[in-house]
Amino acid sequence: MAYVTWSFEALERFCDDVFKAFGFSEEESAQVSDVLLTADLYGIESHGMQRMVRYHKGIEKGQIHLDAKPEVVFETPVSAVVDGHSGMGQLISIYAMSKAIEKAEKAGVGIVSVRNSNHYGIAGYYAQMASNSGLIGFSCTNSEAIMVPTFGRTAMLGSNPIAIAVPADPYPFLFDASTTVVTRGKLEMYNKMGKPLPQGWALDESGAPSDEAPRVLSNIVGKNGGGIMPLGGATEQLGSHKGYGYGMVAEIFSSILSMGVTSDQCCTFPDKTGICHGFMAINPAAFGDPEQIKAHFSEYLEKLRESAKAEGAERIYTHGQKEVLAQEDRRKNGIPVNDGTMIELLDLCSYLNLDFAEYFPGYEPPAEFAGFSGNY
Amino acid sequence: MAYVTWSFEALERFCDDVFKAFGFSEEESAQVSDVLLTADLYGIESHGMQRMVRYHKGIEKGQIHLDAKPEVVFETPVSAVVDGHSGMGQLISIYAMSKAIEKAEKAGVGIVSVRNSNHYGIAGYYAQMASNSGLIGFSCTNSEAIMVPTFGRTAMLGSNPIAIAVPADPYPFLFDASTTVVTRGKLEMYNKMGKPLPQGWALDESGAPSDEAPRVLSNIVGKNGGGIMPLGGATEQLGSHKGYGYGMVAEIFSSILSMGVTSDQCCTFPDKTGICHGFMAINPAAFGDPEQIKAHFSEYLEKLRESAKAEGAERIYTHGQKEVLAQEDRRKNGIPVNDGTMIELLDLCSYLNLDFAEYFPGYEPPAEFAGFSGNY
Repeated sequence: MAYVTWSFEALERFCDDVFKAFGFSEEESAQVSDVLLTADLYGIESHGMQRMVRYHKGIEKGQIHLDAKPEVVFETPVSAVVDGHSGMGQLISIYAMSKAIEKAEKAGVGIVSVRNSNHYGIAGYYAQMASNSGLIGFSCTNSEAIMVPTFGRTAMLGSNPIAIAVPADPYPFLFDASTTVVTRGKLEMYNKMGKPLPQGWALDESGAPSDEAPRVLSNIVGKNGGGIMPLGGATEQLGSHKGYGYGMVAEIFSSILSMGVTSDQCCTFPDKTGICHGFMAINPAAFGDPEQIKAHFSEYLEKLRESAKAEGAERIYTHGQKEVLAQEDRRKNGIPVNDGTMIELLDLCSYLNLDFAEYFPGYEPPAEFAGFSGNY
Repeated sequence: MAYVTWSFEALERFCDDVFKAFGFSEEESAQVSDVLLTADLYGIESHGMQRMVRYHKGIEKGQIHLDAKPEVVFETPVSAVVDGHSGMGQLISIYAMSKAIEKAEKAGVGIVSVRNSNHYGIAGYYAQMASNSGLIGFSCTNSEAIMVPTFGRTAMLGSNPIAIAVPADPYPFLFDASTTVVTRGKLEMYNKMGKPLPQGWALDESGAPSDEAPRVLSNIVGKNGGGIMPLGGATEQLGSHKGYGYGMVAEIFSSILSMGVTSDQCCTFPDKTGICHGFMAINPAAFGDPEQIKAHFSEYLEKLRESAKAEGAERIYTHGQKEVLAQEDRRKNGIPVNDGTMIELLDLCSYLNLDFAEYFPGYEPPAEFAGFSGNY
């Protein structure tokens, strides 16, 4: 699939206008756009513009409620439970993480557990809201079941990402990863390329390892069993129970503390997905001088980057470094969007009565999409 | 190597007497023994009686200071930094986790970061102190460098375990795992058996995968490079950067927040190891009715255990279940201790002037150890 490159500013104007056209306020639209485009800037294509179709479908189906406002249903000086009332996941999450940050600034720690939300984009965005405020940030979410627990054959947990951001120089530490070995997006990529899946990624409907992307994906859609392995694979030899354990940690902070919907039930309702999130902010000032702690951490990160490389390896990364490099490149050289996504955006424009050509001047769909105007 | 089985009570009496003979008080000795024997009850042999030789050596070398008392050097209602002054790791950790629990009971959350401690045994013990009090517990530690970061060839992080315990029925959730794919103990087992290491565990001195246990172990001891892979292996394909990321999380809560010694430097000093820990307790009452939350979680755990098994698999475990089963068995049928460890205990008795035969009546060392009385 071919890619076409657009400037960050062009995509931002488009995203803003799309969400305003859906009925969100100027501020709300800017918030959602920022989460999506941060993913594209970081090179996490699967969570950027490519997701707009899913949000569109969610709104159309009635699983995302445009006018819902998040509500605090329980609160202490260090904690809160938020009911998202099935609003837009990004708006609920920015609200909830802001609350955690506020609490951490006053009380040292803030933990907010959220129920009845929707897909929130990249977990790291919210963790980084905290690190941008000089705090340690933690963010996690559950999601539609796709992870098969160790020795199982049915997906019972989501991809359940966990993100942690910590202030550091010259850039923050930002760890953001699904607790499955890979995400569904990777399987879809292999499927598009017609390539067999690497060993250690996926399970078929009997719970046996499978390298067949089409079979695994159609089983996931049809809920016929199988799915993706936890980080660590399918057996204890490489630590399957550990990835499964971290998946549970995401569940505990999201669906359990909030009394929300666990991953095995997420996205099975007609009028909501039930997706839950967990957020935490920790103030380093509760442990000493934040500047000293930051310098101490930055020094260790530098030692890691400078440590001896494996034969043939060019670089040891610390977490968040790749995102910084990608962002520099994409702000300067633009963000590549693939034709499949462009076609979805064309369709979205016709649905919302927006002038596609105004946002994406000169774009011509490739031959196989010529004349496309129907629903994707 | 053969095993000989002793009752929990016999081993407890022995451990208590050993630590009293070293000079610890009755209460302190009982605390250390409980941490060690809990590991043996859970079937985590590497962290039980087998470790006594390491504590003995630490005391002899002067890295463990018998009379050191942990000191709070920074404190808020939700947090503290403790300097362990190189005392016994278990005593410092019980002190620090008790503080976190106290804070969580009053303020909803307690986070305690510890510097200048020593090896603390199983991470899960401290997490479970919290769950025994109806709280969510988190415990992590750094340790002597053994984990090679993704694309590296030098160990820069420890095995850095993370444990999380959460109240549930009929038994608590207890996740306790190194952030390396396996621990050094596993490599030593393969070494003893003369078997090649499974793929995806270890790296040689050039940073290339290796199945040679003797080579990897001697490199670790000699600090010649190489070591153990992060959970997720050596490349990003199976998520190496994720295990490396969780290793960093353990580092952040232990050595970073406490301004302590990072793993790359741990155990390189003559008069201390510098090992650091992190503890957190979270009160479910800060999120609603603890009994409702517990019931909600227990129901999900039950669903996981009852979900469809992979072909050929008998059981899906939830975390902590294996430990419960092992404990039931070992309290009833005794705890197996291998001959190598027995010989170390014999030597320990001669060092401390304890009567070995009184604790282990009828034990005869196997032929290869006949007449053994020197230093191990």
